[in-house]
Amino acid sequence: MRILVAVDSFKGSLTADEAVHWLSQGLMKGARVEVDPCPLADGGEGTSALVERYLGGRRVMAPTVDSFGRPRPGWWVRWGRTAVVESAVGSGYLPPADRPASVWHTTSRGTGMLVHHAQQAPDIDRVIVTLGGTGAVDGGMGFLEALGVEFYDRDGHRLTGMAGHLERVHRIRWPDVVPPIVGLYDTFVPLLGPTGAVRLYGPQKGVTPQDVEPFERHLAHFAHVLQDSLNQSDLTNRPGAGAAGGMGLAIYALGGRLEAGAPAVAQWMDLASRLERADWVITGEGRLDAQSLLGKVVGTVLDQARARYRPVLAVAGALPADLSPFYQAGLTAAWPLVSGPMTVEEAMRDAPRLLQQLGENFARLLMYGDSG
Amino acid sequence: MRILVAVDSFKGSLTADEAVHWLSQGLMKGARVEVDPCPLADGGEGTSALVERYLGGRRVMAPTVDSFGRPRPGWWVRWGRTAVVESAVGSGYLPPADRPASVWHTTSRGTGMLVHHAQQAPDIDRVIVTLGGTGAVDGGMGFLEALGVEFYDRDGHRLTGMAGHLERVHRIRWPDVVPPIVGLYDTFVPLLGPTGAVRLYGPQKGVTPQDVEPFERHLAHFAHVLQDSLNQSDLTNRPGAGAAGGMGLAIYALGGRLEAGAPAVAQWMDLASRLERADWVITGEGRLDAQSLLGKVVGTVLDQARARYRPVLAVAGALPADLSPFYQAGLTAAWPLVSGPMTVEEAMRDAPRLLQQLGENFARLLMYGDSG
Repeated sequence: MRILVAVDSFKGSLTADEAVHWLSQGLMKGARVEVDPCPLADGGEGTSALVERYLGGRRVMAPTVDSFGRPRPGWWVRWGRTAVVESAVGSGYLPPADRPASVWHTTSRGTGMLVHHAQQAPDIDRVIVTLGGTGAVDGGMGFLEALGVEFYDRDGHRLTGMAGHLERVHRIRWPDVVPPIVGLYDTFVPLLGPTGAVRLYGPQKGVTPQDVEPFERHLAHFAHVLQDSLNQSDLTNRPGAGAAGGMGLAIYALGGRLEAGAPAVAQWMDLASRLERADWVITGEGRLDAQSLLGKVVGTVLDQARARYRPVLAVAGALPADLSPFYQAGLTAAWPLVSGPMTVEEAMRDAPRLLQQLGENFARLLMYGDSG
Repeated sequence: MRILVAVDSFKGSLTADEAVHWLSQGLMKGARVEVDPCPLADGGEGTSALVERYLGGRRVMAPTVDSFGRPRPGWWVRWGRTAVVESAVGSGYLPPADRPASVWHTTSRGTGMLVHHAQQAPDIDRVIVTLGGTGAVDGGMGFLEALGVEFYDRDGHRLTGMAGHLERVHRIRWPDVVPPIVGLYDTFVPLLGPTGAVRLYGPQKGVTPQDVEPFERHLAHFAHVLQDSLNQSDLTNRPGAGAAGGMGLAIYALGGRLEAGAPAVAQWMDLASRLERADWVITGEGRLDAQSLLGKVVGTVLDQARARYRPVLAVAGALPADLSPFYQAGLTAAWPLVSGPMTVEEAMRDAPRLLQQLGENFARLLMYGDSG
C-alpha cells in the first residue's frame, strides 16, 4: 500500500517538511506501507524552502531591509531560470516586541530589493514572489520603489516608500521596462474593505482600531493615483491585491499576474501524478476551517484527489464542528492532532509525538489485515 | 458491513447506552452500515441498568439505607431466577457536600438489605452484587449485619455495622444458612496495603491522610477476627476483597465468590457471538489507561475480538502516550473523543456531538468506497 503524505505546515509548531517526517515515521511504525513524502505550501511562507529542499533550488544571498527599513541579510532561491523571492524574507512579520516604530513606518522595500537583485542575475527570466507572512502595510509602495518606480508629492518632492507616505503620493513615474513578476497569494483578499489588507491582516501588524480608517483612506488614495497613472481602474479588487499588505496590488500595477499559491506549489511538487500512484492520501494543516477549502493546501489536495477517486484523510490541530463541506469536497475522514483534553500550546509543543502516534494509528487502520 | 459498537460508559458524561446511541447515529450518517449496539459495563455502576434495558430484567423496589444509614428507597433487578443488586444503589457514593458525618460513620448495610430483600423473594435462587461506586469503607460489616451476621464487642455488647465499630469486633456469630452470593468486581484490589480499599479508594470517600493508618489497622483487626471465626486465612488478599470498601471480603466470608465484572457482563450481552457476526468492532471508555486492560470493558472486548481476528477501533476521552500494550492486546487503532484543543469539561459537555462526528468519520473511513 502506498500512502501519499501531502500536508501543509502546522503553523506555529511544525514546517510541512517536519510534519511529513513525523507522520511518515508513525506510518512506517504502524505497518509495512510505502510512504510518498510530499510537503506542500500555500504559496506564502515556507514556499522557497520547499523549492530548495525538494526541487533543486539554490539559495542566493542578497542584501535587504526588514519591514522597518533596517538593513539585514536576505536571500532568494534560484530554480533553473526562475527566481523565488519570499516576501516573508524581504519584509517579514515582526512580533510587537521587535518593532522599533508604529505600522506607519513599515515598508515592503526589502522584498523589492530581493526581486531587483534576482532580476539582475544572469539567466533569470522570471521572478515568483510569495505573498504572505509580511509585516508591512504600505500598498507595495516600498516594493515598487526598489524596482525603480518614483513617487512624488504635490510639491514635486521625491517620497520614500512606506505606509506613512501613501497619502502624500501625487505623481508616479514608472520605469520604461520591468521584467514580468508572478505573485503567489495564499489569500484572495482585495486591497480595501472588510476583507481587505487593513481590516483582516492589519491588526496583527500593528494597525490599531483608531488607525483603521486613516489606513483605508490612505491606501485608497494611493491606489487611485496608481491606477490613474496607468489608465487602469480594476486593480484593487483583483484577487490577492491586498495580499502582503498590498504587495499584490503593486505586482498587478507592474503588469504582473497573481495566482493562487497552493495549486501552483502542488503542480511544482507533481501532486497530480503522485496521486495517481497513491492508494491513500493524508493531508493536513494546523487548522481546518472555511478558508481551508479556498485555495489552501487541504482544499487543493481534496480537489485533485477527488478527480482521481483517491480517499483522503485529513489531520488538523482542530476539526471544525461541521465537516460536511469537507466531505463534499472529497474528504473521506478527519482526525484531530490532539490525543485528549489539552491546550493549544500543549498540542503545538507535543505535535511531533502526536503526529507520530496518529501516523501509526492510520497505518494500522488502513492495513489492519497485515499488522498485529 | 456490520459494525459492533461495544462500549463502556464515558464516566462523568455518558452512560454506555448513550455512548452507543451517539456513535451509532454518526456511523449511520457516515455510510450505509449495519450497527449492532452493545453497551457494556465493568460490573460496577450501571450494570443492573443494562440488565433491565437489554436483557429483560425487571426492577423491584425495596427499602434500603444510604452509606450513612439514612433510610431511602432502593431497588434490585429480577432477571429470571437471578437478582442483580447494585452496591451503588444500596450504599452509593455521596459527594462531600451531601455527607452528614465522617467516613467513620459509613456503612454498607443498605446493600445487605437489598440482598436480603431479594433472597426473600419467590423464585430467586442467586444474587449477584455489583461492587463499585460505593461510599462506605466498613469492610462489609454493615452488609453482613443486614444478612444476619451478629457482631459483639469484648463485653458481649452487640455492635451495629459501620466503619467506626470495626476495631471493637471481638466475636462474630454467623447465621446457619446464607444463600450463595456472587460479587462482580470492577477492580482487583485486595483489602489492605498500597493498592487496597483504604489507600486507593478511601480518599474520595472521605478518608483523610491522618485516617489512613487507623483505617488500615481497624480493617486488619476486623478481617483477622472474621477469618479466625471461619477458620480461614486467605480472604483479604483474594482478588476484589477490597472492592466496594471491603464488601468483597464480606462476600468471600459468606462463602460466595467474586468474578471480574466486564467479562461477566460481556457474556450476558452475548459479546462472543456478536463478534462472530461483526466486520469491525468499536469499543471505548472515558479514559484508556493501564487499568483498561485489566479486566475492564476495553480489555475484555480486545481479548475476545483478537481470538476471533476482528479489527477493533477504540474511542477514548484521552489516549495514553504509549498505545503499544493496546496494540499487543489486539487494538487496531485508537481515536480520541476530542476534536481539538479543549478542556476535560468541554469534552464531557460536548461528548454527544463529538461521538457522533467520530462515528461519521469512522463509517466513512471503513466504507470509503461506498460514500461520497
